[in-house]
Order: sequence, then structure tokens, then C-alpha cells
Amino acid sequence: MSGLDVMTFEPAPERYAWTFGGADPVARIRPGTVVRLFTEDCFNGRVRSERDLVSEVCQFPFLNPQTGPFYVEGAEVGDTLAVHFIEIEPARDWAASTTVPLFGALTATHLTALLHEPLPELVWIWELDRKARTCQFRARSGEFQVALPMDPMHGTVGVAPANLEVRSALVPDAFGGNMDTPEMRAGVTCYLGVNVEGALLSLGDGHARQGEGETCGVAVETAMNTVLAIELIKGRPCPWPRLESETHIMSTGSVRPLEDAFRIAQSDLVHWLVEDYGLEAMDAYQLVTQAVLAPLANVCDTNYTSVAKFPKQFLPPGEAMRGVDRHLRQLAADYRRGHS
Amino acid sequence: MSGLDVMTFEPAPERYAWTFGGADPVARIRPGTVVRLFTEDCFNGRVRSERDLVSEVCQFPFLNPQTGPFYVEGAEVGDTLAVHFIEIEPARDWAASTTVPLFGALTATHLTALLHEPLPELVWIWELDRKARTCQFRARSGEFQVALPMDPMHGTVGVAPANLEVRSALVPDAFGGNMDTPEMRAGVTCYLGVNVEGALLSLGDGHARQGEGETCGVAVETAMNTVLAIELIKGRPCPWPRLESETHIMSTGSVRPLEDAFRIAQSDLVHWLVEDYGLEAMDAYQLVTQAVLAPLANVCDTNYTSVAKFPKQFLPPGEAMRGVDRHLRQLAADYRRGHS
Amino acid sequence: MSGLDVMTFEPAPERYAWTFGGADPVARIRPGTVVRLFTEDCFNGRVRSERDLVSEVCQFPFLNPQTGPFYVEGAEVGDTLAVHFIEIEPARDWAASTTVPLFGALTATHLTALLHEPLPELVWIWELDRKARTCQFRARSGEFQVALPMDPMHGTVGVAPANLEVRSALVPDAFGGNMDTPEMRAGVTCYLGVNVEGALLSLGDGHARQGEGETCGVAVETAMNTVLAIELIKGRPCPWPRLESETHIMSTGSVRPLEDAFRIAQSDLVHWLVEDYGLEAMDAYQLVTQAVLAPLANVCDTNYTSVAKFPKQFLPPGEAMRGVDRHLRQLAADYRRGHS
Amino acid sequence: MSGLDVMTFEPAPERYAWTFGGADPVARIRPGTVVRLFTEDCFNGRVRSERDLVSEVCQFPFLNPQTGPFYVEGAEVGDTLAVHFIEIEPARDWAASTTVPLFGALTATHLTALLHEPLPELVWIWELDRKARTCQFRARSGEFQVALPMDPMHGTVGVAPANLEVRSALVPDAFGGNMDTPEMRAGVTCYLGVNVEGALLSLGDGHARQGEGETCGVAVETAMNTVLAIELIKGRPCPWPRLESETHIMSTGSVRPLEDAFRIAQSDLVHWLVEDYGLEAMDAYQLVTQAVLAPLANVCDTNYTSVAKFPKQFLPPGEAMRGVDRHLRQLAADYRRGHS
Repeated sequence: MSGLDVMTFEPAPERYAWTFGGADPVARIRPGTVVRLFTEDCFNGRVRSERDLVSEVCQFPFLNPQTGPFYVEGAEVGDTLAVHFIEIEPARDWAASTTVPLFGALTATHLTALLHEPLPELVWIWELDRKARTCQFRARSGEFQVALPMDPMHGTVGVAPANLEVRSALVPDAFGGNMDTPEMRAGVTCYLGVNVEGALLSLGDGHARQGEGETCGVAVETAMNTVLAIELIKGRPCPWPRLESETHIMSTGSVRPLEDAFRIAQSDLVHWLVEDYGLEAMDAYQLVTQAVLAPLANVCDTNYTSVAKFPKQFLPPGEAMRGVDRHLRQLAADYRRGHS
Repeated sequence: MSGLDVMTFEPAPERYAWTFGGADPVARIRPGTVVRLFTEDCFNGRVRSERDLVSEVCQFPFLNPQTGPFYVEGAEVGDTLAVHFIEIEPARDWAASTTVPLFGALTATHLTALLHEPLPELVWIWELDRKARTCQFRARSGEFQVALPMDPMHGTVGVAPANLEVRSALVPDAFGGNMDTPEMRAGVTCYLGVNVEGALLSLGDGHARQGEGETCGVAVETAMNTVLAIELIKGRPCPWPRLESETHIMSTGSVRPLEDAFRIAQSDLVHWLVEDYGLEAMDAYQLVTQAVLAPLANVCDTNYTSVAKFPKQFLPPGEAMRGVDRHLRQLAADYRRGHS
Repeated sequence: MSGLDVMTFEPAPERYAWTFGGADPVARIRPGTVVRLFTEDCFNGRVRSERDLVSEVCQFPFLNPQTGPFYVEGAEVGDTLAVHFIEIEPARDWAASTTVPLFGALTATHLTALLHEPLPELVWIWELDRKARTCQFRARSGEFQVALPMDPMHGTVGVAPANLEVRSALVPDAFGGNMDTPEMRAGVTCYLGVNVEGALLSLGDGHARQGEGETCGVAVETAMNTVLAIELIKGRPCPWPRLESETHIMSTGSVRPLEDAFRIAQSDLVHWLVEDYGLEAMDAYQLVTQAVLAPLANVCDTNYTSVAKFPKQFLPPGEAMRGVDRHLRQLAADYRRGHS
Repeated sequence: MSGLDVMTFEPAPERYAWTFGGADPVARIRPGTVVRLFTEDCFNGRVRSERDLVSEVCQFPFLNPQTGPFYVEGAEVGDTLAVHFIEIEPARDWAASTTVPLFGALTATHLTALLHEPLPELVWIWELDRKARTCQFRARSGEFQVALPMDPMHGTVGVAPANLEVRSALVPDAFGGNMDTPEMRAGVTCYLGVNVEGALLSLGDGHARQGEGETCGVAVETAMNTVLAIELIKGRPCPWPRLESETHIMSTGSVRPLEDAFRIAQSDLVHWLVEDYGLEAMDAYQLVTQAVLAPLANVCDTNYTSVAKFPKQFLPPGEAMRGVDRHLRQLAADYRRGHS
């Protein structure tokens, strides 16, 4: 534990960021640091009962508050930031989900513009049992209840975008952001290409759990206490966010239509097998075809997100992203030893 | 075992069907029958070595031969056919995969028409070890080999289409067909809405295994020995193919763009939870959002196929499709007892 | 006029075709023949007042009756059929348009499956003034009326599909069919690749006029008296329908998503400039980029249709499709001389 | 002429903006002012010969320089800015077009990520004859030349985005930006909803002409001398850019897939007919369906842009956007009288 830098950051209510890019850093982090932080839920904590409709209690564009941005020392354009999630733990014993007028996969939206009236606007309050590790669903109509397993994750993790852009925290794109993949859970390392000096990492949008695709557009939303470890991979770019778990490497793509998101993720995975595992491109294309998992992340946000997930056990000899995940797992183990 | 009708059908080479609809039945089946059949691979068995390029040895439209169609006695428009897969076993100790010019997810195609030259056309011969339950990949360039788990499935299962149509066996649509989902494995029941008298079930396109999305367009293709049990659900329509395993109920959608395939599958699942499990529609929308898995099937065929997969353990009390899956599992157990 | 073969065909009510492919020919035509025929409207004449809702008076799949198919003598796979429209004249002094539940571009549909209730189902009866060449719109709510120019066209023109398929007359695809482009007007030649012996040409779905994209899914639908001249281009394939007017050559593409329909039409136009006008492909790409018009045809049918329209005055020296349009215009002139 | 405020602005090379939002205003404009300005071409003037490849002479993200932003006095969120183009005149006697690796409609791109090598990178220098009003195309291979009509337009016109965002000048979206519609020509008024105080109007990306869809991704690019008149419509929002010419009102939508861009434009037009012309929504849907033109703008940029174009002669009595176009035409006439 000695020598392990641990930083704690709990944002004051007025310190949240609402964008990727365009916000001043809240703190500086050295690579190799463990960061403990709090993230507010996507409603900025304003949906607390079935009466709290998003269209009434929330105010655009002040949705999806991000904790950060953190300036990572030494991060330069062309590097890759590695963010390892040591813990993602709900900070409350409840969570909220809602429908939002003209938002979601099974409704007319502002971008799939149809002549229908919006679907009903409703709130579901979910009870979180942090001991039992469950999220309790209660139907609004009738008596049905069911406990789903808790599987905490961050819907939104990203850095400042390239091309001088500033993007809403509701957007997923090449800089990461609101990808809404359940794969972003504790034990996973997320790789993000650095577009500006200091990278400017932010995160938020904790979900106690979420289905694949986030069909209605809103997960089981809650505040989180999260512990990260940060590293930097110098001189190695990462064009789209990648993830690594103990068992899988994963590429992501975020764009519309959904087949293009799939193509980005799958192409990136093919290139990854070439770069880090020495396969020839057509061999990688073949192997990916037969071994990949393709769990959808979101089909509701400004861009849709597809994940291409490859089991490590079927990889050729090699090391993903210079092996930084192994190093971060060591940091995580050190941290846990000191904090259990 | 007494009273169990078992029919065996091995098609003569000239008896394969190349379409859904438009082919004369090869046999009549009574509901409650177990059918043992053989399916040829999608290349009609013509790709047997790395020198057998699809563009040279195969002849359009004679791709993807289907075993069938089977006329199911009593099947009428508005009924649903239930097909339970008791066994799907590779009939050979090898399988073939290929690239096909202008076909696949990561290439220009006839439908995503670009000005590029086709990617290289290549064949990979996979060794199947039916004891070890593995498929052996050998890279074409370099020495890399790896054994992937065998997970046999049928890429193509369908009935005659509605609207007087006849569709190529390469097409997935509301009638089923070339959905290419790895979920179509032994132990699963597939529900198909009946569009014409007798339903006219056919199947083929065996895969020793396949990744989700079938990225390059071709799986680990092999002939299969397959055992089915058939039932009929009278007066119950099924607008899009559904599947049921011991652990999950699944809806599918097949169309382009991929988000519309996702929408069909997810909407159908919402409606299913309303029809068979008594949830109100918005409650079903919410529960699906948090609990669904969304494994892609294919992103390469004429239509793309998305699967919405819901864990049975989180369902309200109820019975999928009148409980026919339970009955079919019983038939399967009876069959196995008699044939082990 | 001597030597001009003129055939007249008015289908008996039970002789309409509801598919492309799969129907027996109603007549044989020699290339060089002029054909006078009648087409019923897409509702099979059943929507005659504001009370005649499609969902009540029409019966799926008996929508969009086609006159034909005509067996063209000598037509073989790999040839192209050229159909020149000499006249397309409304056969009635009224036309109907409607909304249809879950059909159209600005509504949830069976393929863009959402949880909304259908939009209202309504009928508009349009008055056609064949002397003034106008279509009179009357608002259902309020007093507004306006006369739009009559611009008669066929929404549906096609041949039997390839790949052993039979497709609903509601579908546009590589065989033509329900493309719904306003460019299919009198004075235009339509080129269709021949997929089966005899080609099996059918047509129908007359529109007194239609906007680009056919937004609500239904045009100003009416029966037509149409005069065609037919020719055959031997040994010249045509992968997607092409059109030629006195002033433009046009390629079409029909698929989803709409950008892929655009890509097909634009790629085909690039290839056309290479094949018949000797441009190098990248030069053709550049010239098309700056000179093409891209009027949408339909964004509501099973496939969406995009048209790429190039002004003849900017073409290099050359001759489209072996100059058959010039020959057909001559036939048309001969016919008009004999029938005015 | 007295009383007409005319401002002239020629940006210094370092004063161009590369984004919408995020740049300091270069000047303040009062509504009612005429502005004369210069815009550089999308290459920042660096492609001047066939040897000047974009990938070598240009430097991302410094593409598509915008003149502005202009702070419009009194402009507040919820207002609409009206920009009338009095003149758009090429500032040079040549223009450049190119292919750009992995950019364009008929190639693999960063967003439609495939495994192909990029298409060849080429430059075409077009000669502009400002007297004859032509753009001279010269094929790179062979001798073909042709003069296309000059039809100058701005590919990029926009204001600062909503939601705290800053977007690259290469992006079209609800704030306008890189819509690349040939409809943005002299004589047209462009309506843009105001998202931030002062609106922050910028424009650039002059095209001597462009086909619909901008197929290869690059038009006939040149610097422009442009004269605008500006007005403000207080308290009237405009969710997506609209255009008005002497003969048509036009709505636009910019998103992927292309059918969603079509839906936005068509829905907005339906709403516009309801808001300003008193039609009931379903009547507007019907009338739009039969009367609309749907010329594509771009099918190559980050978002695709579709235009819905309605002839004024078929409109009910009413006044688009409070009649500000009429007022701006008067300003334009006054300006021309004083400057001819």
C-alpha cells in the first residue's frame, strides 16, 4: 500500500460538468493514481418519486452530470488513457427509471420524427438492496414485483473530443461519453484515445443495472461511489473506446445507423487482433466472425453503441494495449489490500 | 416411448429446396412427431478445400439448400408452428468457412454499393472434433491455431412466407429463414407463424459454431444430423419468429437498418410479456429495458437479425405460447430414452 | 404506321397479378410491339369515398393489382427489357389517397415497430380534371382546396425476380416493382434486367401525381389507360432498374436504409458512365458528384427507392443502353401518328 | 438606399472559425443590416493544383474555415435568425474538387468502417467562367471536357449549437452547419433557431456548383464574395433549419440514417403548414405527400441532410415565418439599387 496515490473527489453541486470538452479541470491526476469519487445520477438527483417527471423536474441541458473533468498529467494527443474500475457501488438504496417524452428505442423521437403523440411519461422507483445485490422492480399497474441482480456500471465515461468539439454528456462517440454499455462494470479497464492535453476524463450516469440496448432510454439510475485507477499509454492511439476485462477484450463503436456502429466495433477488433496479436487481417476477420460476442449497449442515444467482445482464451499470444490492464489490476489489488 | 412417432428424412441431392415457399412438400408430418433429418451445408457440400472458392464452385441461386419443406398436418393461417431441436450434430469431421466477394459486414456489398474492389476471397477449413466438442481454427497466414467450443446451430429455419411470396433461402424475414442466430441450438423451441396451409417447414445451414453478427457473412459451415419435435398451436398467431430455451424466451426481428430489427424484436418481447404474462405495456417496456439481453444474430444477410432475450426467472407468472415448449421437452425426453 | 404491332389488353377482374414472379403470363409480346392496357388502382378500385377505409374494404395481400405478366418473346436471363411509356392517362375523373394504419414515413410501422397507437385512418378523394390537367385537393378539415398539376405515372413496373423468388407487388427491388418514382411518366423508357425466360413484365399502381418520397405512403391513386412500346436488348444485363427520358439518364436503387438505396443508384450511374460513355471510374465519380440530381422516389415501402438523375447534355459522346430509347421514341411517334 | 446599414467583413487568415459555437464573435450586427463578406474555400485555399492532395496539404481539424461568428444584437434563445443571400459570387476563376481517403458516399469511411483500402486520392481543378456562368470539368483520364452551369451556394451556414455544444464546421445538425444543400443559393432566406445569446452566425464552404447528395463528399469548392441581409424573428423558435425562396418553402433534417433525415424534414414541413398556414396535421400530411420535392443535400457528412421543398403556389393563405423573407427581399432590392 505504501506509495499508492489515492485521491478522493466529491463534487460540489455546482461543479458537475455537462459536456465532454469545454469544462475546466476539477483536479489533476498523475498516472498510477487511485481516484475515489462520487457521481450523481443522470437526473441530477431530481427524480425521487413517481411524481417527479423528467419533463417537469429536470431542465435541459442540465442532464447527466459528469464528475470531472480530471486533467491527467502527461497525457498528450496520440496517447491512450486507461481507466480501471476498482469499485462501482450505488450510493443510495434506491434508483429511478422513467420514460421521457420522445426519447427511447420504441417511440418517435426528435431524430426519428413521426406524427405520433408521445408515449406516457412515467417513473419507476427501484429499491436497491446492496447486501442482497438486487434491484427490486415494482410494476406501476398490478402487483408484480421481481428482484433483478444488481450489476452496477457507468453509462458515461469519456474524455474531451477531438476536432475542437464540445459534446453534450448525453452523446456517445469516439471520445467515449454516453455509451451506456453494461460492460463498463467493476473489474474492467476502459481505454480512451487522448484528444487534448491532459485528456480531461469525466464520468457519471451510474446504473444499478441495465439491459442491453437500454430500450426505453433510461436504466436503473442511481448515484455511485466509484474507485478508479488511472494509467497512460504513451504514443499509442486508440481511435474508438476499448474495454478489457479479465476474460475479454472489447471494441466499441457509436454512430447511427446501428449497423455502422457494429461495423466500427468489429473492424476495430479486427485491427486490434492484427496490432497486438499478430494475426493477418483476413485471418482476424475469420476468427472474429466465429468467436465474437456482440452485445448491444444503447439503441436510444444520439449515437447507437455496439460492442464487439472477444474471449481472451481464444487469442493468439500477445498483450492488449501494452499490458497496462495487468498493471492496473495490481494497483487495484494493492488498493483493496489497504482499504478492506 | 410407445406411441412416439419418429420420422426419418434424408433428402436425395435433387430434393433440396432453395426457397421458402414455392417448393412442393417432401413429406407430411403430424404434430407430435419427432423428425430425424440431414441437412447439407450452405455450399451444398462443394467447398471442401482451400482451393474451392465459392465464386467458382457454387452456382447462384443454388446456395443454402434446405431440407424440406414439410407439410404439417392441420396447420392453418393464424396458427403457430413450434419446432423443438432435440439434437443438432455435425455430420462430418470438418467444416468450411469463406469470404465471398461483395458479401459480409466489413466489405462493400451489392446492397452497400461502393467503388472498392472486393476483399480477397479465401477459404478456411475447420477441423471438428465431435468428441472434444471443438472446432479447430487454423490461420491461413502464420502458424496460429485455436480450438473454439463446438456449439452447433441451424442458421436457417423457416416456413412459407405470407403475401403469396417465395423467398430465397438466403433471406431472413417474418417467416424465419436465414436468421443466423447462435440461439438456434439443441434444447431450443422455435415458434413460427403459419402463413399457408401446412406451414411448409424447411431448415438447413448448419453451423458448428458462429459468432454473434456473423461478421464475414459465413459461419463454420457443415452438414448436420438433426432431430426435431414438432407441435402446432392452433389459433395463436406469431408475427415474428420467437424462441424458447430452458432459461430464456426470445423474440427476433429481421430487417434493415439494424435498429429497426432491434425495434421489432424488443417490441415483440414487450407484447409477449403483455399477452402471456399479464404485464401492462409500459411496465413491460420498463422491465425489458432493465433485464433484456440483445445478442445480434446476423449483420450480413439481406435483412439483419436482432434477438431480444429475456431470462425466465424474472418473468411474472404465466406460460409462453400456451406451454407447448414443456410438452415438446417431454417428447424430447421420451425420444432420448428410446434412442440412447 | 404500317407494320406497327399494337396489342390491347384489358384484364378481367380475376386476371390481375399480385406478385412479381409466380403468375402465369396473360399474353405474349414480341419486341417492337405497342401495348395498350388498363391498370386498376392500388386499392383494386375499392376505395371510392371517404368512408372506404383500406383496413375495411381491402384484403391483404390483394393490394396493388398488376396488369400482366406479359411474356416477352426472346427474352432471356442476361438481357434487358426496355419499356417506353407512350401514354399514361387517368381512366377516371377521380382518385383516392388515404392513410393506412402502421404504414408511411411519418408513423410507426410493422418494420419500424414502436409502441404508439396508429395515426388516424383517413381517405381523401381527389377530383381529376383531365382537360385542365389538374388534381383537386380538398382538406378534410376546413375549406382549403388547391389544384395541383396532373403528372401521371406508374408506381409499379417490374419483371419476375431473380433467385427463384416471387415478391409481393408492394415491394420494390432489383427487379423493379413498387419503386414509386414520379420519374416513371409518359415519355420515359424503363430498363429492367431479365431474370427469367420471357421477362414477365407487369405494371400497375397509377398515380395522377405524387410527391417525392411518397411521404404518407399513398399517392393520388387512380386507374390508368397506358400505352407502352417494348424492346429487348440482347446480352446486356441491367442490375438495377434504369430510366431514360429525353433529357436525363437515371439509375435507381431500392433497399433500406435509404443511404444504401442512394449508394446503389449513384454507383450504378457511375458504372453506366463508364460502360456507355467511356469515362474512367474516378472521373465519373467526380462528374456525377457535381451534376447529379437525387430525387427520392419512396421512403415508405418495404424497400426505399432513390433515383440518380443525370442530364444528357453533360454526358460524354456515347449512347445509353445501345440507343434503344431512340428507337422506341420512333415507335411512339409512329403510334401517335396512327392514333391521333 | 439611405438608412441601409452595410457592413463589410473580410477575415484575416487567422480569424477563421473552425467550429460552430466556441469561437469569439468577429463583429456585431444589428438586425436589418446588409453584410458583405469573403469566405475561403473548404481547403483553406491549400488545394490549388492536381498535386495538392488534401491528406498532404490540409491539416485536420483545420478544414472548412468559417467566416464569423457574427453576434446578432438582440438575438436570444427561442428567436429565429433569418439570413437572406443577396449575392454569392465566386471570388476566383477556378475551383477545386477532390476525393479524400475514407470520405464520401461510395467508399468505406471512418463511420462505415470496412476492411478495404481507400479509393485513389485525386484532385480536379475546375475552371470557372464568371461571365459565361460555367464550371469547366476536365477528366483526369482522357480528353473529355464539359461546361456545367455555375450555381453558387454555401455548403455551410449555421449558428452556435444548443446544449452547450461546440461542433466542427464539418458537421450539419439542428444548428445548420455543413448541410451542403444546393438550395442555399442567392435569393434564398435561411432560418436558423437561436440557441445562444447573439446567435453567432458563421458561414463558408462556397461551392460554384454541387450535385444533390454531394456523392464523393467534395463539391466544386471555391472562395466566395457573399452579400447577406440579416433579420431576427423574436419569440419564434425554429427547431431545424428552414429555407425560403421566391417559389418554395423548405424544411431540412440532418441525421443518420438518411430516412431519419427525411422524416425530420418532412415532419417539420407538416408542422410548418399547420403553424403558418392553418392546415390540420393530417391534411398537411396528405398535401405534403402529393406536392413535396425531396432533393437530397448531402449523403457524405457526419450527418446526412434531406430537404423537403414545397411550392408556394400550392400553399393555403398564410405567411411563412411572419413574412420576414418579404422584408429581406426589400432590403436586398434596396441594396442592389445602391450598389449596381
